[in-house]
Amino acid sequence: MILDKSLIDQHNSQGNALHQKKYGLLASLLQDEGHQVNTILERLAAFQVAIPSWALGTGGTRFGRFAGGGEPRSLEEKIEDVGLLHALNQSSGAISLHIPWDIPQNPKAIQQLAASFELKFDAVNSNTFQDQENQDYSYKFGSLSHTDKAVRDQAIAHNVEVIRHGVELGSKSLTIWLSDGTDFPGQQNFRRSFARTLDSFEQIYAQLPADWKVFIEYKPYEPHFYSTVVADWGSSLLFCQKLGEKALGLVDLGHHLPNTNIEQIVSRFLMEGKLGGFHFNDSKYGDDDLTVGAMRPYQLFLIFNELVDGMTSSEIKNPELSWMIDASHNIKDPLEDLMQSVEAIMMAYAQALIIDRPALEKAQLQNDATLAQEILQNAYRTDVRPLLAEARLQAGAALNPVAFYREQKIRQALIKQRGEKTYSTGL
Amino acid sequence: MILDKSLIDQHNSQGNALHQKKYGLLASLLQDEGHQVNTILERLAAFQVAIPSWALGTGGTRFGRFAGGGEPRSLEEKIEDVGLLHALNQSSGAISLHIPWDIPQNPKAIQQLAASFELKFDAVNSNTFQDQENQDYSYKFGSLSHTDKAVRDQAIAHNVEVIRHGVELGSKSLTIWLSDGTDFPGQQNFRRSFARTLDSFEQIYAQLPADWKVFIEYKPYEPHFYSTVVADWGSSLLFCQKLGEKALGLVDLGHHLPNTNIEQIVSRFLMEGKLGGFHFNDSKYGDDDLTVGAMRPYQLFLIFNELVDGMTSSEIKNPELSWMIDASHNIKDPLEDLMQSVEAIMMAYAQALIIDRPALEKAQLQNDATLAQEILQNAYRTDVRPLLAEARLQAGAALNPVAFYREQKIRQALIKQRGEKTYSTGL
Amino acid sequence: MILDKSLIDQHNSQGNALHQKKYGLLASLLQDEGHQVNTILERLAAFQVAIPSWALGTGGTRFGRFAGGGEPRSLEEKIEDVGLLHALNQSSGAISLHIPWDIPQNPKAIQQLAASFELKFDAVNSNTFQDQENQDYSYKFGSLSHTDKAVRDQAIAHNVEVIRHGVELGSKSLTIWLSDGTDFPGQQNFRRSFARTLDSFEQIYAQLPADWKVFIEYKPYEPHFYSTVVADWGSSLLFCQKLGEKALGLVDLGHHLPNTNIEQIVSRFLMEGKLGGFHFNDSKYGDDDLTVGAMRPYQLFLIFNELVDGMTSSEIKNPELSWMIDASHNIKDPLEDLMQSVEAIMMAYAQALIIDRPALEKAQLQNDATLAQEILQNAYRTDVRPLLAEARLQAGAALNPVAFYREQKIRQALIKQRGEKTYSTGL
Amino acid sequence: MILDKSLIDQHNSQGNALHQKKYGLLASLLQDEGHQVNTILERLAAFQVAIPSWALGTGGTRFGRFAGGGEPRSLEEKIEDVGLLHALNQSSGAISLHIPWDIPQNPKAIQQLAASFELKFDAVNSNTFQDQENQDYSYKFGSLSHTDKAVRDQAIAHNVEVIRHGVELGSKSLTIWLSDGTDFPGQQNFRRSFARTLDSFEQIYAQLPADWKVFIEYKPYEPHFYSTVVADWGSSLLFCQKLGEKALGLVDLGHHLPNTNIEQIVSRFLMEGKLGGFHFNDSKYGDDDLTVGAMRPYQLFLIFNELVDGMTSSEIKNPELSWMIDASHNIKDPLEDLMQSVEAIMMAYAQALIIDRPALEKAQLQNDATLAQEILQNAYRTDVRPLLAEARLQAGAALNPVAFYREQKIRQALIKQRGEKTYSTGL
Repeated sequence: MILDKSLIDQHNSQGNALHQKKYGLLASLLQDEGHQVNTILERLAAFQVAIPSWALGTGGTRFGRFAGGGEPRSLEEKIEDVGLLHALNQSSGAISLHIPWDIPQNPKAIQQLAASFELKFDAVNSNTFQDQENQDYSYKFGSLSHTDKAVRDQAIAHNVEVIRHGVELGSKSLTIWLSDGTDFPGQQNFRRSFARTLDSFEQIYAQLPADWKVFIEYKPYEPHFYSTVVADWGSSLLFCQKLGEKALGLVDLGHHLPNTNIEQIVSRFLMEGKLGGFHFNDSKYGDDDLTVGAMRPYQLFLIFNELVDGMTSSEIKNPELSWMIDASHNIKDPLEDLMQSVEAIMMAYAQALIIDRPALEKAQLQNDATLAQEILQNAYRTDVRPLLAEARLQAGAALNPVAFYREQKIRQALIKQRGEKTYSTGL
Repeated sequence: MILDKSLIDQHNSQGNALHQKKYGLLASLLQDEGHQVNTILERLAAFQVAIPSWALGTGGTRFGRFAGGGEPRSLEEKIEDVGLLHALNQSSGAISLHIPWDIPQNPKAIQQLAASFELKFDAVNSNTFQDQENQDYSYKFGSLSHTDKAVRDQAIAHNVEVIRHGVELGSKSLTIWLSDGTDFPGQQNFRRSFARTLDSFEQIYAQLPADWKVFIEYKPYEPHFYSTVVADWGSSLLFCQKLGEKALGLVDLGHHLPNTNIEQIVSRFLMEGKLGGFHFNDSKYGDDDLTVGAMRPYQLFLIFNELVDGMTSSEIKNPELSWMIDASHNIKDPLEDLMQSVEAIMMAYAQALIIDRPALEKAQLQNDATLAQEILQNAYRTDVRPLLAEARLQAGAALNPVAFYREQKIRQALIKQRGEKTYSTGL
Repeated sequence: MILDKSLIDQHNSQGNALHQKKYGLLASLLQDEGHQVNTILERLAAFQVAIPSWALGTGGTRFGRFAGGGEPRSLEEKIEDVGLLHALNQSSGAISLHIPWDIPQNPKAIQQLAASFELKFDAVNSNTFQDQENQDYSYKFGSLSHTDKAVRDQAIAHNVEVIRHGVELGSKSLTIWLSDGTDFPGQQNFRRSFARTLDSFEQIYAQLPADWKVFIEYKPYEPHFYSTVVADWGSSLLFCQKLGEKALGLVDLGHHLPNTNIEQIVSRFLMEGKLGGFHFNDSKYGDDDLTVGAMRPYQLFLIFNELVDGMTSSEIKNPELSWMIDASHNIKDPLEDLMQSVEAIMMAYAQALIIDRPALEKAQLQNDATLAQEILQNAYRTDVRPLLAEARLQAGAALNPVAFYREQKIRQALIKQRGEKTYSTGL
Repeated sequence: MILDKSLIDQHNSQGNALHQKKYGLLASLLQDEGHQVNTILERLAAFQVAIPSWALGTGGTRFGRFAGGGEPRSLEEKIEDVGLLHALNQSSGAISLHIPWDIPQNPKAIQQLAASFELKFDAVNSNTFQDQENQDYSYKFGSLSHTDKAVRDQAIAHNVEVIRHGVELGSKSLTIWLSDGTDFPGQQNFRRSFARTLDSFEQIYAQLPADWKVFIEYKPYEPHFYSTVVADWGSSLLFCQKLGEKALGLVDLGHHLPNTNIEQIVSRFLMEGKLGGFHFNDSKYGDDDLTVGAMRPYQLFLIFNELVDGMTSSEIKNPELSWMIDASHNIKDPLEDLMQSVEAIMMAYAQALIIDRPALEKAQLQNDATLAQEILQNAYRTDVRPLLAEARLQAGAALNPVAFYREQKIRQALIKQRGEKTYSTGL
């Protein structure tokens, strides 16, 4: 589905008067507070969040999955959906593929298709948490950590194949979410599982192209319910230390125990120059994979406070970060959900950009917790939506993507084109 | 598969000498402490835990399912599997069916089959958390709490149909696990969802036969990740109070927030005469559905401490309880897992039976926390396995069910009979 | 310390131009969205949050307490501090006393002093979680739930005495936070503890004046670490049901297990007409007693969404609510902390008042989770600070209370007057 | 108070017949399973758990402290109490001092006193979480991480002084529990707090004698409720890596977020050769400091499974470990509580010693989770109390320490000697 961009212009011209009123006041207030509004707009425009290919279909739980309509039936249609999103918000200029769900049969054509939507290929993702048909060995009891070398070799080979696909498309990184773990005490020896996994990681690492990175994601539980090999940031960091400089940690917001201070973990990784990327989503209980910003927007802002600090402080030597959404959308239209997620991310980023950092630093030196809170919350409580809208306006995107999407009845058009009961590959 | 009981006798005679040595000492020690060992054995023999029909196949997570071999392919084979279990431990003399996974085409024949294994039919379970083919309305946004009366009526009718099936088989209760809830703040009005659900419950309640009960299960999250209509014991109790005396709460051990004191909830329900039944399993993080006793055996013991108190104290007026396992067995042989689960339940029950209750009561009156702990832990630390083995021996079951099952290579026989890659209906 | 109100006028006239610019735009936008801004201002002006007498001094933990300077040394100075707060924000027009920390020696004089600051007396609080000197019996093992009738009688008498003090000052409610519980399994029988507590509550209830209410607060743990008699909302509701219509539940935001959906609990209490009041604070781990809104401002907003619904819906029959802050301020200036807390409460209230409720209701009926989220977050993301400032301006309070307090060096003046190392009674 | 050892002999001879009956059967069963019972007894006898000097008095919470009677009033009396414990169980042959609560005025005399009870001095503990009288700078806003160098220097000097005291007494390690952290987002910059702390640690490290170690304890929250500098095992490990080989992590069982898999953390530390020691206690909610084994005895066993693995596997190069209890005893007699704690530790150790490790390893290689669980639980379910009693008997300790303590009315004697309302220094 190719969007007629004149429709966006029309939408924007209708909303422009009101937008200018809001934006004008906000810009002047920010200017009075000493901010360079244009610089902020540039940074917002430059910020691109990758969309994972599996987020374009309706997700589910172990108890069931309720299909949505008009879901993409092929890699090509997934790329089209991301292209559509990007046209609407100009902040989703990348796609993150999952192998084997998205093996490109004709990489050149796929690249051209993506380029036609101004999309890049972000990290590629391997999958050794499920068995595929015609697979020699089962991952029921693990993959890269398996006790059986043959199974590990198969899982290593799969990761190497994923790198190969990524190279063909122009990706520069591999994300490994290793779900391996145990369900019962005693099932495995923690130490040996770690050692076997390290050996497997080393073999994959050896196959990384020179300009590639590998991201080691961590998660405390699910799909296993007693232990996970890469359970926490400490384990992820240990693996990365042992692997070398191309290995970096990856933070998924839903992969923490209750009450974890995630922003401090982000700071720790950055301090060590070992943060690779981010999987954004939101949650209340576990890895709920809800819309970003739907549950704990203030936590998201505090994380962006660390990220902006990490991206701007000269004390930090960390490679450029990889941003991705990783949500599930069991009951929302996936495209609407992604628009809401991107908006929430941009909002937290914008709020973090307008923190008065010199004043904050001074308050910290004086142990003035009241003032530090006033400074942070002054930024957080500011309604930055006009800033985001202005950045979109300047980039040719829609003032209000969700509203535009509904006005244009895009989902209905996709259903007409693709059918009422399509199932996208994914969870 | 029909078990040749002489094989059990053989197994038992081989292990009997060692068993008698252990049992003899334990029995004499218990007798010295004032216990009536025969009474304990009788109570253990009388305790029967229902096996849910969906626990006989390998479970999975949203990330995948790894099939086991030899899983039952029909209701008849499920009943055979429970019959096998019961023959091995004489403690699993009931089966709990799930509709629509187990609709009996010929109830009479099914009843006869079950009777041939000395099995009764425990609570029947309805399912409005999944859509079935040819269903008019989807449960994507709820069932008994749905905003649309047509959907609620469909879900009510389903529950009434489940009662009908139960009546045909001799069940006396309906378990409703209502998964309805929301994933995002604002998605529904909590109060109105409650009101609609109450109305639906009332219509189902009105269809209960005179000697039936309905169990209202609670769960804080999953498959929905913001709110659940019957989220906690307080909500369950409220519904039961409003419905009437046939409505009782049902406790599933995995359905609580972190750190919940479940045993006090059990006590509260019993105090109000409102405990209907129990779903046993174990967990570390959420509704992990692990083998009973695999993670927190002491908690299980503390819960049985309350249950024994509730079953024996004259101060409590609570109907007889319904016991069921509700676990998932993603990586174990389901039958082995169930044997381990039943053993863990019986062990906790036996330990709770040998608590010196008069001494405990006295310690409580004197606020002697040290002594109260000594008394509880004296029971818990006692190795009661010889008691369970003796109870099995007297009932004609196997001294060591898991060992027997492996000696006899029963799984291999089932695989030969049913196939390597069978899928049982269920999760 | 009596505040010279002309200083406030001066502060306000300096900030007024900028304020009018912000307020003007916000008011016009709200008006365009169909809101009656004046009605909102009236409601904000009417909303008064009681300040607990123990929040005016620096709190501590079991590991230590670091005193602040200029803390109130007497009940009179505590009232002066609340008067100061109220002068600054006109939203803190009540004080909640704690007995025995604040026994008024001369109630008439105390009432006159409070009236001179336009302060009312909100709920009075009893304390049976600590032993006082010259007390006959210790509460080490409980108070209203104690196994010994003499201890219970002493605790009952204390509560009755608290009511008497409250009557003298014009309070209309008693808050009972019963800390009774156990630290070890087996220490007490849950059921009997409940029964003894109910009996004690009934005796206190019988002494309530006709126009009084009693609030039953719940808390899962601390100071006891295994069980609590009034552990959760379900237990609180059970007690209230058994006691009668003057007994109502009280929600303290920090008294929940990890991940609890507090807003649904609020809805349940309101639905049953059983919500008495609120203790506001914020937390990340347990009963952290942090500044309101410092950690989870979105949750606070969602709770106010329920409260506004409860205060305005004709479907709900709940008595008028009692609002109080209950925080601890270990490292902040207590007055600054309270100003920040009140501001956060008013902000959440204002945001909840501008939710487009008819649209939300429509989205709910259509199961449109995306739109419901847009509606809620549209209100939440709005920067309502100009509304609060305008309400304060109209009421004669300070445009920016914290800034004013610092400009005027009020803490320094209090230190000069009261000393550098004063200790306020409290935690 | 000096114990007349003939009383122990008397106690033991009374209980011996029954003991021999139990022990005889257990020993023969273990022998049949291939265990060297004498080796197990030797290991149990060699295992000594240090008693912290602050555990001998009654603890409290921020809500109050209820004194017990007969608490030690001086360091000398604390040593006497530990000597008494050790005489009763012969497993508490060390004491861990806390400075400044236990500054030895005459180290020689103190050493002689300890030696007279056959006690050694385990790790010394510093305290920068409280202000002491006459201290130049306050730790209200931190100590080793403080923004002000003068405060950090004071805290460093204190730690160096603690080392000096330890050297005088024969200790070989310093435990640093650094409580520094923040209560509000923005209060400090995480990265700079880490850097300042590292600098402070390095200065302390430089003062360690050649044969000393320093233990870096971690804790996620309390007394600060937003962030902690050494929040988790990952942070502890990072500090230890940067400091050098004398720096090791210390695990306190109560210092974890809900649902943490502590045993895997233990394994990680051991794998890296970086585990220094252990603080034993138990908890349900947070750092509850309950009697060891009172709440989660199975978790304790699983941790000892890792510890035994770490102490015996040739694959692990970890220094010898330091064992200590760190509990609080708010409502129990502290000595009874410590006896119960030591017993629970020894029990978990004994159970871990009788795990059939070769069989477990084989089950792991075959991914046989059922069998692995059977093997672990076979050890756990064994009633090993006769083993512990036999080890005590052979060492001249009491068969049943708690029973002996009560028979002899030792607390009453201590009260008579020391008074009814004594307050031991500590929490």
